Amino acid sequence: MDETREPHGQEQTKKSDDTIAYIGNDPVMQSALDVLSTLGNKKKVIIKSKGNAIPNAVAVANIITEKMLNGNSKVEKITLDTDAAAGIGRMTSTIEIILVKI
Amino acid sequence: MDETREPHGQEQTKKSDDTIAYIGNDPVMQSALDVLSTLGNKKKVIIKSKGNAIPNAVAVANIITEKMLNGNSKVEKITLDTDAAAGIGRMTSTIEIILVKI
Repeated sequence: MDETREPHGQEQTKKSDDTIAYIGNDPVMQSALDVLSTLGNKKKVIIKSKGNAIPNAVAVANIITEKMLNGNSKVEKITLDTDAAAGIGRMTSTIEIILVKI
Repeated sequence: MDETREPHGQEQTKKSDDTIAYIGNDPVMQSALDVLSTLGNKKKVIIKSKGNAIPNAVAVANIITEKMLNGNSKVEKITLDTDAAAGIGRMTSTIEIILVKI
């Protein structure tokens, strides 16, 4: 059993019960529906985004917690960080928003 | 003593010891230096931003906590919210990042 599937693309599923959703520059409502469907069968979703797509991730988190799953979900944790592309000194801000069902 | 100065513009000072810094689309390093000087004589700074300026606020928080005041400051709390402009239904994401000296 040495063929390990290298997780990549939109959704990476870690062993535990949470899923990572990368938010880019897709329409916010479409991303929100993706995250909503993921939260449908998971307890936790980790929304990740960087640079100019960060406002989209914030909007998705707001849409889920204030509209779609209002009162049934909340922001558990928010982490800010910096992604330094090797060698070229450009720093990109990153955000990680953990949404959980309550 | 009825002349009350209406707080507006870049810095609003509340009665308590924290200052609000609104981050817009100014160069990030310039905003970071503003916040640094504020943190110089305050214990806490509340960074606020909205919409497409949110990545700038995240960058400022990272520059302060990871570079300028590395080890002497931290992110105390992050709040995400939505600003609904009255009547026209446009929703704008907002972020509030509280930085404190440690």
